[in-house]
Amino acid sequence: MPTHQDRIALSTAGHGDMHNLTDPVTTIVRDSELHEGLVHVHNVGSTGAVGTIEFEPGLQEDLPDMLDELFPPDKPYAHEQRWHDDNGHAHLQATTLSPSVTVPVGERAPILGTWQQIFHLECDTKPRERTVIVTVRGD
Amino acid sequence: MPTHQDRIALSTAGHGDMHNLTDPVTTIVRDSELHEGLVHVHNVGSTGAVGTIEFEPGLQEDLPDMLDELFPPDKPYAHEQRWHDDNGHAHLQATTLSPSVTVPVGERAPILGTWQQIFHLECDTKPRERTVIVTVRGD
Amino acid sequence: MPTHQDRIALSTAGHGDMHNLTDPVTTIVRDSELHEGLVHVHNVGSTGAVGTIEFEPGLQEDLPDMLDELFPPDKPYAHEQRWHDDNGHAHLQATTLSPSVTVPVGERAPILGTWQQIFHLECDTKPRERTVIVTVRGD
Repeated sequence: MPTHQDRIALSTAGHGDMHNLTDPVTTIVRDSELHEGLVHVHNVGSTGAVGTIEFEPGLQEDLPDMLDELFPPDKPYAHEQRWHDDNGHAHLQATTLSPSVTVPVGERAPILGTWQQIFHLECDTKPRERTVIVTVRGD
Repeated sequence: MPTHQDRIALSTAGHGDMHNLTDPVTTIVRDSELHEGLVHVHNVGSTGAVGTIEFEPGLQEDLPDMLDELFPPDKPYAHEQRWHDDNGHAHLQATTLSPSVTVPVGERAPILGTWQQIFHLECDTKPRERTVIVTVRGD
Repeated sequence: MPTHQDRIALSTAGHGDMHNLTDPVTTIVRDSELHEGLVHVHNVGSTGAVGTIEFEPGLQEDLPDMLDELFPPDKPYAHEQRWHDDNGHAHLQATTLSPSVTVPVGERAPILGTWQQIFHLECDTKPRERTVIVTVRGD
């Protein structure tokens, strides 16, 4: 059975909160018993993002800060004029970063650099309960 | 046969035009008869982008507007000085967003949030005939 | 065996250096003897990026220039205050662009537009020896 799908539940603290998903993703890959292939990590919902980064306190501050510079929270977005939910910047940040990342699998583990981790970033304004779908496909 | 590949033809209206691909992608996933796996949605060409977003009129306006703020159409890009085709910003916007997105498949459907749709964004300056390749792989 | 995994070794010249990976990726796809599916191209490490672009000298200049405008090298990033390695901008650029791209495979070749190539971008400040993992999955 070359597909193994599992999920990670996350409670986020709201805008700019980051989680390191490398350990739970590595565990799911090992449990899949697939040796070589790909693992795909996906945030369900349009205001959260997934990618890779050196997961350390400095960049945990810099990434959300720079996204707020590029897509400022206080702009009069058309999304907010229509829905009055004050999170236009959250949508634009998450769409630009991407809801998911795919990482190669070799020897039953994600192939990452020493300082490269898989992260989840909460872009929405409020704390959220998040579901991250992890799909491993390989041989 | 764990690969099912199909294509969607799009006529775009030019710079900033967005299409919601969720329904045609969902139909292709269902037709693949694969229950669990991944679906990959890819724009052929270097000036169109694919991703996920809450597909509503406000963000259809905000996303192209913000991309034009970050990569302004009227900058003297080296691309334009060389080729005189006035679409340097289109290339940079499409490359930064990404030509494709991958979404998990479960129970014969893409796994997306309620307000999360798959979009195509035309970044080029003129209307284009676009081919989007949809590849479903799973079991 | 529906997974074929290979690697490309790159010597980069440092910040802003781009390589066209289309030919080596196409060769790996052909060698896989898989006709239809997906190819995933992934930079190992957190300061290099992979994507698609029209690979020509103008955009090879524009893409790194615009990334330096959006994520300036000389900002006092928290990453640098903590680690004193002067490459906070490199991390943010690579994370925003993405470490990898997935491209559909048909008739034993990547499906790309005529002016759409697969690139590697070095975001780090110094020359680096890079490993790019190429994973082909299909039938």
